[in-house]
Amino acid sequence: MKAIFIVGDGMADRPLAELNSKTPLEAATKPSLNWLAEKGVCGIMDVIAPGIPPGSDVAHLALLGYDAEKVYSGRGAFEATGFGVEILPNDVAFRCNFATVDSKLTVIDRRAGRIATIDADRLAKEFREVTLKGHEDAQIIFQNTIQHRAALLLRGAHLSTMVSDSDPYKVGKKVSEVHPLDSTAEAEKTAQIINELTHYSYRVLKDHPLNTERQTRGLYPANIILCRGAGKLPDLTPLPLQYGINAVAIGAMPLVKGVCKAAGMKLINVSGATGTYETNVLAKAEAAVEALRSNDFIFVHVKAPDIASHDGRVDEKVRMIRKIDQLVEYITRNVDLSETYIALTADHTTSSRTKEHEGDPVPLVIYGPEVRIDDVNEFGERACAKGGLGRIRGKDLMPILMNFLGKTKKIGA
Amino acid sequence: MKAIFIVGDGMADRPLAELNSKTPLEAATKPSLNWLAEKGVCGIMDVIAPGIPPGSDVAHLALLGYDAEKVYSGRGAFEATGFGVEILPNDVAFRCNFATVDSKLTVIDRRAGRIATIDADRLAKEFREVTLKGHEDAQIIFQNTIQHRAALLLRGAHLSTMVSDSDPYKVGKKVSEVHPLDSTAEAEKTAQIINELTHYSYRVLKDHPLNTERQTRGLYPANIILCRGAGKLPDLTPLPLQYGINAVAIGAMPLVKGVCKAAGMKLINVSGATGTYETNVLAKAEAAVEALRSNDFIFVHVKAPDIASHDGRVDEKVRMIRKIDQLVEYITRNVDLSETYIALTADHTTSSRTKEHEGDPVPLVIYGPEVRIDDVNEFGERACAKGGLGRIRGKDLMPILMNFLGKTKKIGA
Repeated sequence: MKAIFIVGDGMADRPLAELNSKTPLEAATKPSLNWLAEKGVCGIMDVIAPGIPPGSDVAHLALLGYDAEKVYSGRGAFEATGFGVEILPNDVAFRCNFATVDSKLTVIDRRAGRIATIDADRLAKEFREVTLKGHEDAQIIFQNTIQHRAALLLRGAHLSTMVSDSDPYKVGKKVSEVHPLDSTAEAEKTAQIINELTHYSYRVLKDHPLNTERQTRGLYPANIILCRGAGKLPDLTPLPLQYGINAVAIGAMPLVKGVCKAAGMKLINVSGATGTYETNVLAKAEAAVEALRSNDFIFVHVKAPDIASHDGRVDEKVRMIRKIDQLVEYITRNVDLSETYIALTADHTTSSRTKEHEGDPVPLVIYGPEVRIDDVNEFGERACAKGGLGRIRGKDLMPILMNFLGKTKKIGA
Repeated sequence: MKAIFIVGDGMADRPLAELNSKTPLEAATKPSLNWLAEKGVCGIMDVIAPGIPPGSDVAHLALLGYDAEKVYSGRGAFEATGFGVEILPNDVAFRCNFATVDSKLTVIDRRAGRIATIDADRLAKEFREVTLKGHEDAQIIFQNTIQHRAALLLRGAHLSTMVSDSDPYKVGKKVSEVHPLDSTAEAEKTAQIINELTHYSYRVLKDHPLNTERQTRGLYPANIILCRGAGKLPDLTPLPLQYGINAVAIGAMPLVKGVCKAAGMKLINVSGATGTYETNVLAKAEAAVEALRSNDFIFVHVKAPDIASHDGRVDEKVRMIRKIDQLVEYITRNVDLSETYIALTADHTTSSRTKEHEGDPVPLVIYGPEVRIDDVNEFGERACAKGGLGRIRGKDLMPILMNFLGKTKKIGA
């Protein structure tokens, strides 16, 4: 037995006036999702707990079976590892942006005009070998990723994740002084390092030839580095170790890829899987079917519904659900259904009205040879609430799936 | 967005033979409760955990979102603070009754014939300035409240809540010797104080002129004070701090008012809200509507259904549910339903047969602009079990409500 686990990011929603009080899932044409519901067992799921809106990182930790609230240790490390930055267990990792500030360090653009990756590559070279005076024991590893995005790792003894962000998150605000979030010497030192590095980045970048050139081309100079989301890789028991499975993750979003990698999954990059509205879901479906031949467990993540919700684009959200339906259709037609379980859910509700993650439960279906098929024949928030799984927690899903695969261990005798 | 949260104390029940195997809720005429169910999302709720009968104090801690089993520290302090008795963080508080005993201290009536408050006021004067020999360092504060009820505070160093009750809880039993529940000197000392105070109360009250007079009127003398439920105020994060809301509680029962006060809510006293069968629910409804104008969250408690159950008065319980229906009707007609969430539930099941709190789940409905309306159109124990909320825990309700109000914080990124 094998399993494919498909997550539509932020796919669940609340009833919307413009959809006649239906949710986007309820309003969308989705024959394959409905087929899963009809032939499977449905339920609703509090990914963390009722009423609690999870971030995508915390949500995915739970969906992969971990006690997310206990193990979570900040976003930075997941995103760094998801981008392929090599990170060691005690590295303190930050998410960074190249940004544009004026001479008083007031933010003009948080993303330096979404600087092209090729330009960011060139500027990042300035940080290859940085050592800060008085902090020679801390190794500073800076790596840009896509466009303005970058990861910063601090490696060494006496460091802490308990520091605030230098990113003020708003245009017109000054770059924030980083301060320690507890009273340890480690947090104090880490805050000092980030503050000094921030000023160092401005000194090195403000008159950089590339920035002079950018300005003559009418582009924002990328003259500072802003840091946020200090975190470490949590100490997770890898899924292959915990369940004795080969596990593969397919998705485009670095944060989710990072969580999957931290959970010991192999990452498969699919060309055309972009994490945007144009993401090629059929390419993901093909990759999933292909990967299933030599692996037990395939995790497929589609980011687009969440982006549509955050943009308040109900029409796009419905369209992205239609695309996920096509992904499911391809998978159901191309795997051996007599030995494949298919789970489909969302990592959280995102309201297309509030444009925020919300704490409402998400719908869930598990299709497979030996599930207790219920009466639900539509995949939606309300239809699934009548399903045979009842209302479960996010961290319960993996054990349920792994049990169908014969991979859970009995407790007791 | 705002919310009104209505609790019918002990409103849930088990099927009763005299109601053709319906519960009082199922048997009652309740058009407004049914309207809430029809237009809202329903479920059942284990206020603490399946099968566990909660006391009203523990139940309300959970209903207000606290981890009740962790924070609970005895009933006495809640009741004292709910009565307006000024209680300091380290006071050891007891709930007390004026009771009737014979000369061997055998209990004849635990409530001294539900002595009138005016009589109790007079007797309580005897305890204004009590100091016990050898315990001069302990300040003794006794304050009667309604009818036979009173609060006792012990203030000072070297005191403990770890003592048993002097109240034997049963007619025909002797007043209990209080003993320490752990081996500390503090518990030993506290037990001694209560034992001495018990005997002191009998000495002072047995020949009190008022009691002589009561006996000539054929009334039970109130000739002893029984103590139970030693507790301290728990250290709760106030709701206004936790969620950034203005929170108001409306109710008559001191215990519940005490929990609400400990949770940082403002208490509104409503004239005619008595906690008895004659309680004026419309006055509560009016107060709730009025309070909603300048506050985010209104909690309304109606004690009467629980009293009816404890009295085994099924007819009265049905009548009290009818009254709660009128309260809901008034509220739904007088608030702006486009921006108001209304939650209705019970704090526990009380069986009209056993006359005890029971561990069966309670029905729950949440009405409001963005709930996922389900198919349930009747508010009752069995109807709600088919609702879209499924089966949740008591402590999950507040986060769900606060999430609809946009007041919960995302975990992770």
